[in-house]
Formats: sequence, C-alpha cells, structure tokens
Amino acid sequence: MDEREATATGESCLRVDAIAKVTGRARYTDDYVMAGMCYAKYVRSPIAHGYASQIDSTEARALPGVLAVFTWEDVPELPFPTAGHAWTLDPEKRDIADRYLLTRHVRHHGDAVAIVVARDELTAERAAHKVKVEWEALPVITTPEAAMAEGAVAIHEGGNVLKSSEISAGDPQSMIAAAKYQFQNHFQTPVVQHCHMEGVTSFAWMEEDQRITIVSSTQIPHLVRRIVAQALGMSWSAIRVIKPYVGGGFGNKQDVLEEPMAAFLTSRLGGIPVKVSLSREECFMATRTRHAFTIDAQLGIERDGTLKGYCMDVLSNTGAYASHGHSIAAAGGNKISYLYPRSAFGYRATTCYTNLPTAGAMRGYGAPQLIFALESLLDDAATALKLDPLDIRLRNAAQEGDINPVNKKTIYSAGLPECLRKGRELFEWDKRRAECAAQHGNLRRGVGVACFSYGSNTWPVGVEIAGARVLLNQDGFIHVQSGATEIGQGADTVFSQMVAETIGVPVNQVRVISVQDTDVTPFDPGAFGSRQSYVAAPALREAARQLREKIILHAAEMLHQSALNLTLRHGMIAMTERPEMPLISVAEVAMDAFYHPERGAQLTAEASVKTITNPPAFGCTFVDLMVDVALCKITINRILNVHDSGRILNPLLAEGQVHGGMGMGIGWSVFEEMIIDETSGLVRNPNLLDYKMPTMMDLPTLESAFVDSCEPQSAYGHKSLGEPPLISVAAAIRNAVLMATGVGINTLPLTPKRLFTEFRQAGLIEG
Amino acid sequence: MDEREATATGESCLRVDAIAKVTGRARYTDDYVMAGMCYAKYVRSPIAHGYASQIDSTEARALPGVLAVFTWEDVPELPFPTAGHAWTLDPEKRDIADRYLLTRHVRHHGDAVAIVVARDELTAERAAHKVKVEWEALPVITTPEAAMAEGAVAIHEGGNVLKSSEISAGDPQSMIAAAKYQFQNHFQTPVVQHCHMEGVTSFAWMEEDQRITIVSSTQIPHLVRRIVAQALGMSWSAIRVIKPYVGGGFGNKQDVLEEPMAAFLTSRLGGIPVKVSLSREECFMATRTRHAFTIDAQLGIERDGTLKGYCMDVLSNTGAYASHGHSIAAAGGNKISYLYPRSAFGYRATTCYTNLPTAGAMRGYGAPQLIFALESLLDDAATALKLDPLDIRLRNAAQEGDINPVNKKTIYSAGLPECLRKGRELFEWDKRRAECAAQHGNLRRGVGVACFSYGSNTWPVGVEIAGARVLLNQDGFIHVQSGATEIGQGADTVFSQMVAETIGVPVNQVRVISVQDTDVTPFDPGAFGSRQSYVAAPALREAARQLREKIILHAAEMLHQSALNLTLRHGMIAMTERPEMPLISVAEVAMDAFYHPERGAQLTAEASVKTITNPPAFGCTFVDLMVDVALCKITINRILNVHDSGRILNPLLAEGQVHGGMGMGIGWSVFEEMIIDETSGLVRNPNLLDYKMPTMMDLPTLESAFVDSCEPQSAYGHKSLGEPPLISVAAAIRNAVLMATGVGINTLPLTPKRLFTEFRQAGLIEG
Repeated sequence: MDEREATATGESCLRVDAIAKVTGRARYTDDYVMAGMCYAKYVRSPIAHGYASQIDSTEARALPGVLAVFTWEDVPELPFPTAGHAWTLDPEKRDIADRYLLTRHVRHHGDAVAIVVARDELTAERAAHKVKVEWEALPVITTPEAAMAEGAVAIHEGGNVLKSSEISAGDPQSMIAAAKYQFQNHFQTPVVQHCHMEGVTSFAWMEEDQRITIVSSTQIPHLVRRIVAQALGMSWSAIRVIKPYVGGGFGNKQDVLEEPMAAFLTSRLGGIPVKVSLSREECFMATRTRHAFTIDAQLGIERDGTLKGYCMDVLSNTGAYASHGHSIAAAGGNKISYLYPRSAFGYRATTCYTNLPTAGAMRGYGAPQLIFALESLLDDAATALKLDPLDIRLRNAAQEGDINPVNKKTIYSAGLPECLRKGRELFEWDKRRAECAAQHGNLRRGVGVACFSYGSNTWPVGVEIAGARVLLNQDGFIHVQSGATEIGQGADTVFSQMVAETIGVPVNQVRVISVQDTDVTPFDPGAFGSRQSYVAAPALREAARQLREKIILHAAEMLHQSALNLTLRHGMIAMTERPEMPLISVAEVAMDAFYHPERGAQLTAEASVKTITNPPAFGCTFVDLMVDVALCKITINRILNVHDSGRILNPLLAEGQVHGGMGMGIGWSVFEEMIIDETSGLVRNPNLLDYKMPTMMDLPTLESAFVDSCEPQSAYGHKSLGEPPLISVAAAIRNAVLMATGVGINTLPLTPKRLFTEFRQAGLIEG
Repeated sequence: MDEREATATGESCLRVDAIAKVTGRARYTDDYVMAGMCYAKYVRSPIAHGYASQIDSTEARALPGVLAVFTWEDVPELPFPTAGHAWTLDPEKRDIADRYLLTRHVRHHGDAVAIVVARDELTAERAAHKVKVEWEALPVITTPEAAMAEGAVAIHEGGNVLKSSEISAGDPQSMIAAAKYQFQNHFQTPVVQHCHMEGVTSFAWMEEDQRITIVSSTQIPHLVRRIVAQALGMSWSAIRVIKPYVGGGFGNKQDVLEEPMAAFLTSRLGGIPVKVSLSREECFMATRTRHAFTIDAQLGIERDGTLKGYCMDVLSNTGAYASHGHSIAAAGGNKISYLYPRSAFGYRATTCYTNLPTAGAMRGYGAPQLIFALESLLDDAATALKLDPLDIRLRNAAQEGDINPVNKKTIYSAGLPECLRKGRELFEWDKRRAECAAQHGNLRRGVGVACFSYGSNTWPVGVEIAGARVLLNQDGFIHVQSGATEIGQGADTVFSQMVAETIGVPVNQVRVISVQDTDVTPFDPGAFGSRQSYVAAPALREAARQLREKIILHAAEMLHQSALNLTLRHGMIAMTERPEMPLISVAEVAMDAFYHPERGAQLTAEASVKTITNPPAFGCTFVDLMVDVALCKITINRILNVHDSGRILNPLLAEGQVHGGMGMGIGWSVFEEMIIDETSGLVRNPNLLDYKMPTMMDLPTLESAFVDSCEPQSAYGHKSLGEPPLISVAAAIRNAVLMATGVGINTLPLTPKRLFTEFRQAGLIEG
C-alpha cells in the first residue's frame, strides 16, 4: 500500500474557500450574532505614561442602555501573558505575565483603565466618553536607550529591561578581526502595524455549565483558551474557543488580545454575550506592532568576498508590555543563522520596555530587521570591495550539508545558491547591473539583491505538536479536522491536498472543517512561525495513512481479497496489479462500512504528532528601481522573489503568499511607519488615512519564482513559506538605492522625508 | 489494567445538565439566532382529503416583508421517506418514500400545499392566510377497515395497504385450540400525540461551500442529514446537522419533520437563514401521532394458568403518510415476544393509509398497544378461571435460559419473575387484592397488574452502530463526543458515568459535548428504540479503555515504570500494588503528554462499534384504583412500576425515566385522545387546552422499583429503559377497573365518556 500514488500536493488547485470568500458567504466572527449580545468599549488613556488618579463613572452608568462599567479595581489580580506561544513545562521559558485586564498605571497612549458594557455599540462608545478620569503624568520613555538610562522611571516593577541574550558561534570577534576587511554600521527599523483587513474582534458568553465560550478572530484558538483561563483563574478546559474564518492576522492575532476581556465581562454579567470589537484606531494603539530594532552590525570579509564573521548588537523596543517580548529579538538571531553558516556569528540582543504601543509578533518575527542590517552591510562591503553583490552571496550562501553554527543542525536542503542563480537569470541581473553602472543626473537607476533564511517552525524553543482527525462520510467525502488554522494563507487548501494525496482520492473529495472548536478540534498551537504546513503535515499524513489503510482493509473484506492485493487511487479501489481497472469506489466502501449489518464501522483516524526537526527555508529578493533624487522618491521597476521552500505544495497559493509578503515588505521598506511623538509618546497617525500603507496602485508587479527542492525531513518535502517573502525585500531595495545613488540608507522606511535627510547629508541635494 | 476499578455507573449522580436547564442557560434550537433570519409559514389544507385545484398567491406575495411563496409546483420531484431509521443496504427494507415537500393532493387535515417566507414570523403567518386556494374534496377515510374496503379511494398511488406481515412461532392456532380454555377479545387504542414541551423547530442556511447547515430539535441528527439529502437530491455530506439541547421528542422527533423544508427554502433563497417552526396546533395535525391499533386477540390456557398459545391480529392506522409505516406494527410483535416465550405466538398485522394525521414513532413503538390487548386478555382469563393475575404471570413469565420463540435468541437475563415477586411485596398485592374482593356500591376499588417485554435496540431489523471519541484536556478533564443524542432522557449523564468508570476518573471530570454536529460527531443513528445506552456503551467503553491505556502508557514513560505496574483510579496513577498511594494525576500526565518537548502527544481515542445483540428488558405495573361508577371516574390510589433493565446505571435518572413513562402511560390510558371526526377527518382538539394531557395535579404519586439484574451481553450490564415504563400501565389500569367493576374495557382511553358507555352497556349504570 503506497499511500502516495495519487499526486495532489505540488499541483495548483483553487483555494477551497475561494468562492465562499468572493461571494461573501464565508462567515467571520462579526457574522455570528447572538440573542441579547451586548457591546463593550474601553476608556483609554490620552497620555503615554502615568496614573489614573481618579475615575468617576457615575454619568456613564446613568446613560440608558449601559449595563456596567468596570475599572482597574474590578478585574482579577492575576497577571497574565498574551504571547501566542505553546505552553512550556519549564517555568523559566514561559512568557512574561505583565498584563491585567485593566490598569491604573497606564503605560502607552491608549492603554485601558476602564470598560463600559451597553446594549448597543454606540451607547457603549458614548458612555465610555462620559467616564471622567483624572490623570497624573509620569516621564515618557520612547527608546530603549532612554529606558536603560540611569534613573529612568520604571515602566514595570522589574525595571525596563525585559531580557538580554547572546549567541556566539565560531568566535565571531576574532574572525572579524582576522579578516582582511571590516565593515560596520548602525541600522534602525520603524514601528509598523499589521493592518489586517478584519479588525480585532471577539465575543464571549457563559455556557450552561458555567464554562465560557469565546468566538474570536484569532490565529491561535487553543492558546487563547489557555491564556483566558490564566487571566480569569479558571481551569483550561472551562474555556472554549471557536475560530471562524479570519481576515488576516500577520502575527497580531498570535497574541491573545481582547478574548480575556470578553470572557471576563460575560462572567461578571451573568453569562450574557458580550462583544469586544476594536476600531482601527484602537488596533493601531492598543493591539501589537512590529518591534523597532536598533542594530549595530559589523562583519569581517576577505578580498574574495568570503564572509569570515559577522556580529549584531540589537536593542529591541517592545513598548509598554512584554507580549512576545524578548523572544522576537532572540528568535530573529536563530532564524537568520542558517544563511551564511560557514561564517562565525555573534549576536547580542536586549529588549526593553518603553511607553510605545506594545510590539508583538509580526510576519518575519525579528528576521526582517536583522536581515535588513546584515544584507545592507554586506552590500556596503561589496560596494567598497567592488564585488558583485550576487557573487558575494553565492560564495557564502548555505549549501546542502552545511551545519548551522548556532544549533549544530545539518542543513539537508539548501536551495539558496539555486535561488540566486535562477534569479540572476530570470531577473537578468548581470545585464541590468551593467545598465546601472555609473548613474548620474536626477533620475538614477539601481539594482539590489538580498537573501534570507528562516526556520519552518519554533522547535526547539517551543514544543511543536499538531493533530488531525479524518472521517470518511457515506458519500466518500472525507472530513478533516485540524487544530492548525486557516487565517487567509490557504492552509485548508493545502491540507486538503495532503490528505487527498495520502489517501488516494481527488482533492475535491476532501473537506477541511475550517472552524476550530477547542472542545473537540485536535490540539495545535495555531498559525504562526510559518509552522503550520510543516508541523501539521505529519499529523495529517499519519491520520490519512491510517484511514487509507482502513478503507483498503474494509474493501478487502467486501471483495474477499487480501488487503495486500489492493490499492486505492483516484477514489477507487483496484487490484495493485491492475490499477487501471477500478473495482469499487471509496463511497461504496463507506456505505458498506456504515451499513453492513455486522461487519465494519465508521471509518475515522486521528493522529497527534510532535515535530523535532526545523529545516530552514531560503530565498532572495531582486529589485530594479529608479530614484528621483530631487523628489526623494523611489519607483520600483521590477521586483522578484526567488524561494527555496522545499516542494511547493500548491504553486498558485505559494505565488499568492509570496506576492502578499512582498507587498508587505515594500510597505515596511518604503511607506509605513507609526509616527509616535518622541517626547509625549502619542501616536500621531493611528488610522489608514495617515498611516501610509501601500495600496495595489502603489505596488509594482510582483514576481515570484521557486527552485526545485525537497526537504527530506518534511512529510511532503516542503518547508516554510508564510513569513519568508517579506524578509529580504527591504535590504534589496536599500541596496538598489545604494547602487543608484551611492547613499546607503540605514533607517527604514525609505520615505521621501528620510531620503531627503539622507541625500542632503550626502550632498546629493542641497537644502 | 482492569479498567473498571473505579465504580461510577450504578451510582446516582446529578444530571450533568441539571443546573443548565433549571437556570434556563441550556441552549435549545430557538435560542440560536442568525443575522437576517427569515421565517416560513405553511398554507395548510382545511379538508382531510382532496386536491388544491387552484392557488393564487398574488396577494400574499404583495405583502411587504414577504420574500417568496412556494407551492407544490416549486418543490423537487423527489419522493422521500421521513422515518428515522438507519439506512439499509437492502432496498426492500428501506422506508417508504411517499413524501414531497409540498403536495397538491392533500391527504390529511393540515396537509401543506404551499409555504410563505417572510422577514418576520407574523408577516409570514399573515401572508399564508392570504394565499387563496380552491379545494376539490375526495372521500375521507379514517379507519383501516374503510381503507381496505372494496372501491375505497386510493390515498396513495399504490393503494391504501402499506404492508402486511406475519409471525408464527410454535403453531399458535393448534396450541390455542388444544388448550383447555380459549379466550378472545377485540381491542382498540386511540390516536395520541407526543406533546413534547419544545415544539418542532429548525432552521437552515447555506454554507460558504454551497453546503446546507441545519440546526434542529431532533433525536436523529445523522439521519436528518441523510433524509434532507434525499429530499433535495444532494450528496449526504453536503448537509450538516447541528442538534442543540432538545426539549423532548418521544419519537416524534425520530421523524425528519421540517428540516428538509428549511433546507429547501434556504437553497432557493440564496442561502439566507430560514426558520420553520411549528405551532402547537401544527404539531398536532402535521407532525406525528401514535398509531391507533385495532387488535383481535385470542389465547389458549390451561386450568393451572399455563399459557399454551396466543395470537394477535392487528390493523394499524398510519394516517396520511407512511412515516415509520408498518415497522411499528411489525416491531411491536417482536418486542413483546420475549414476555411469555414458552407459549406459541401468532401475530398478523396490516398497516393502512387513512386520512388521519400521520402516525409515527412514539414511546413504546407498537408494544403498548399489543401489551394492552395481551395483558387485558390474560386478565379476562384469570378472572374467568379465578386465578390470581400475578400467579398466572409468574407461571408464564420469561426465565433465564428461555429462548425467544420468534427469533430463537436465548434470554440471558430475565428479571421478570423477580419484578413480579418484588412488586407483590412492595405493593402488598395479596393484602390489597384481598381488600378489593367483592366490591359493590358506587365507589369500587380494584387492583391490577400487567407485564411487558421490550428490546434494547433495533437489531437485527436495523443496523446498530455507535461511535464515541474521547479527548484528554490539559487539566485532566475528559471530553466525550458521541453521536448518541441527549434529548432530555439523561444520556449525557449516563455516558459520563460510563467513561468515568472505564477510565478511572471522577464523573465530574468527564464532560460530554452535548451538541451534535454531523460534520465531526462520531456516527450514531440517534435516540430511539431505547437503544442508546445499550448501543453507545460498547463504543464509549472501547474509546475510554483506549484512552485509559494511553494515559497509563504515558505515565509509565514519565515514571520510568512498566505500564503493567501501574493503575489509574480516581483520576490518579498509582502502582497496582499500592493503589492507595497515588503518584501523579491524570492532569499531570496530560500536561506532560501535551508539552514535553519530544515524547507524547495529545491523548485521544475513538471507537465505532456495531452491536449484534438485543436483550429484552422486562417489567410490570401494579395499580390500585377507585372507580366512581356514577361519575365514571377513575382515581388511582397507588401505582408502582417494577423493572428489570439489567444494571441500573444511575438510579436517580432511572427513577425519573420510569416516572415520566408512567405519567405518559396514565395519559394514554385515562386522559388523552386526539378527537378526529370520523366523517370529515378534521382534528377537533389540536391544542393543549382541548387535548386533555394530564398535568402533575392529575397524576398520583408515581412509584418505581428495580430488581437486581445484570445482562451479560451488555457493556455495563444494562438493558433498555427509555420506553419500557409506559408499556404496561394501560393494561394494569384496565385490569384494576375490571376487578373493581367486573367490566373489562377494551377501548382506550378510559375517559368518563368511555366508562359511561361501557358501564351502561354492562348495566352498572342506567341511562
């Protein structure tokens, strides 16, 4: 019984939810309603740091339709973490629990001191405005440097430094010093927001058995369950989380955001359904952002471009609360360590609290910031040494058989050299590079390239576990339950393909149950770390393999054949020797299994599998752009990402992932920035009008390509692809601007304002 | 590993949903709402038989808020069955498909020709009244005799006889003839309705993938799925059925009632949610009723009371549509054949269509009618032969080792003699019987007894299959998914006990997921045939056994012990040799299994099991009553049911079941009757004011007792108990009246009106 006869992964098939989504029939959290649902609105801080010295909710409570006002005095004294990490048995490794549902000590602009519940949303909003708060201001800290300064006011009791960590592989300082050339530079990345289409929304009610059910737009239903239980001091399974379709998360919904509050409110209001839905403004100020990193990078390189060693010293700004805290800075160092594994690598990172909105997980999880620094510095070296930036990368890039210097894991599939070669050809790198030589005048053209590496899950930092259950229906359709979540990335489609391939049925005979329900859905931490397709695959494949075996065994009984003589392809049972002559269909087997009076039973299978491998994906971005020096404006002529993500499970969806990531990468590189007043900590542009997220009109044609690759440790040969497409975009753009103008800009985003500052400083323009 | 160390079944524990239900927090179908839900109301026939010759819905459609009007012309030409029987691979055995969603040929008062959908219920109702229909009447048939008469108009194309069947075990006619005494009589039972508290209600919407989801108050979610698919010509798994808490069904919701219509309407209205909810009047006229049986019974008996043989000849009135059709008359014969297995038994039954509301399944499924006849006739014999009715039953009752003469199955547990003996003592039968000798005057007292037998499922007529899945949560709580449905009878509680016992955890650590969802819930046909606790038990036990084993195996890994050395009791792992010294808890095992970085996985187990045994439950009713001859009124002084249902899984719930059944039995015996005009077929009392269902004030104290019994073929020693408590009530009451007055009344119910007729005929009263 070879369970992979029928190929399904590797083919492009339409998203299983494509029609549902374009027809508007797919149901998201806000499409669910409940009788008697009430609405909550926060009373938020207008200052970035201080105390609420007095609060008066009399007027708010008096408003008709208001059910209750809760303040910091009413919430449980149970600090809880919000980061969407699987639990760990090691108390040292657990996320920092620095949150209460409401706080008197406000730590960022928009921090919440009270919440109003009313019969309708407008009344809640109006009542929230009627809550009178007197504020007592504290000094505002907006940078890690200020946070660590002598005498800085403590934002949290334990001080302003969350954690520091260090990696040292192969004695980097000595290697850098011993190299012929040394380069170093200082890099700075901005605070940006995920800007998922669907906002942050959830509602909760108390079940008949005093348990609390929460419907939420989340990436991590099973983790929401645990964290809500922690926040309310309940037993974990007393919380039930349902996850409908999700309109994007990008890491923001890898935090537990408003679910604990929704649960708290219903628990205090006799179990009525209460919804906590944030406005876009609130999403900006009071959910999560991408960490701003300050990076001091240095490298040592030989004349021929051999990278001997590189070091990065990072200050990470996590804002007002820990959320994922230091793990983003720490993880970033691990994720990029596959890129140039033959070089020594040093990495130091410190994460600090400041009075900025809280930073959390965002696509790339620390890697984009570090890759921006590393790949920019490498181009500084290439420029100085007059080496082709592509050649320098080819020389140093990871190859099969290399060993990651940090974790000592062997790299079994390393398609990065192939990505660079394929990109060189597709992008016509050499021709374009020649065309761009010696640019002058106002319009200057440049090309750039940058690489990245990225793991396929969180192992060994986090436990990697996934579960899947498959059921054969009477009509031959197969239902799949998985704790891994569809959040817009196409997980359900790829999972359908995996199961179809392994069982041996057409893809359209497989139906993934997209809604997770933690009461019954197999356990899986959720969608993050680009982990899902890699970690869910062994569970899906094992469950599917078992079901295939059961189908064949039952068919054998029906056909009076040894199961060894039978195979299953394209939904039909056939003799292994005569696969072209189908005997009976899976549906016929199912009907007999269900309804034969004596033999058989319902055919189902379930598997829960832990993963202890974590192969890296690789890739690179090529950019060709024009800089209008006078207008300080960048126009991208062409942009191409080339990826090694192992076997590509669905080229159509993979292309979509890459395009999405590239667009987000361009946003981070050129357009987006939360403008936060350095003195007051106030957020100046918390809306989609003032926050300049690129639209389709602002983006060039996005091109993508993949290299042939197959990861041997992977259930279907694949590796991560969710986050990678974003990672190398910024450095490639920055490097192209360097080539075009000779100016290496080390602070993102490359907005006209930034370019103006840098070009003036470089003497390109006067002012 | 003895998985039954911790006893949980056999103990009284509170219903798991008790608090939810008394606090009103348990969610029933009507507690679920959806955005944009619309409502449907039928246009029903005011005549019992005829055609809609013309229909004009112009005015209805013009009413603001009306979305659509559908008539018989708009519905699929797909006849479908409605009976809640598991599918069979044998086409001969399938239920009769005689239904269309709407019909031009109306066959009973209230039959539906059209349906209106509107934005709100009132508008739908008003619009339905505005649909103008012209009617063409056909002759109305209300009795099987008229239905079979020469030249009778055909209610359905195939004629008015659904089916006839015959059982002959041991040459009954010869045995009766050879006996010393022969008795015979004619019995008649009424049409009654289930009158479940929660009405018939369901709603449906079209899912994002064109599938249809239905939320319904049903006993049989998995069967609803199949039948809706049949009615709409869809693939079975394209239908999804969700069953919330159910407020009673008693067999009425073992039919697929309004779910196909709700599904049809949403499919025709672009997927909007549409609700079809019936009023109490509609429940009476247009759902299901209990079959009226006309029974000619005879028996042959020896001087010592040895029953040599008995025969019954039954005409069953199924009304306008087949529904369960002939299977009720046929099944009844099988179910009672365990009672006196050493006697020859002859049984003939014919089921006819008439123009009465459709009869279907109702608690007892044919047995109450037959037991009424048999146990009445036996008392006629006892009276004539001056034998003690209790002795005559003791002499003939089934004993262990007897073989059912019809199906040749051995009876391994037969507690009926013990029931009779225990009842004799508890009821003080001999003393009371002596007190009642020679009654005269206006107030006359009598005692009566009657017995029954009843199977524990539908095997071998139907396939018996059940599935269960169990999941261990991080906090040690165990979730149970089962296709078997809680409909008020306490299934969830007893299932919790079974799982707790088998795993070895406290009952309150087990949580049954009460809501079924056919997309993911293990398959089980549902709640009917008193099958669930018997048929679900092996699946629950097997799944629980597997989970127990997995827990112990993981604990063994944690403790560096052989699993053979470990046991699990009261939620704690201990050494088998030192069970009193617990080592670690199930919750600790769970946490390690989930979160140890490498070993373990989520612990779950699933089993689907077919059952091919069907042991009978037994029992008897004792009644002491007073007859006011002049007022023709019966007052029950005392009533006691004694049951052999094998091991009693939860005495508290078992008592509740028995009380409910006895109350329903008293209703059927003394109070309830749907009054249907014999000429017009019109239902005269389709409401709870005119239909005299007894209230708590009308019922005596209900007493119950159980005998020690353990069925060896059963997973937990138990047998059926859901339907049995009702079955022998009517004959016991009738027999007590016979003793009190000398008048054997053979037509139910024993209302004052009936008693007046009979007493006058017997000369007890003048008139």
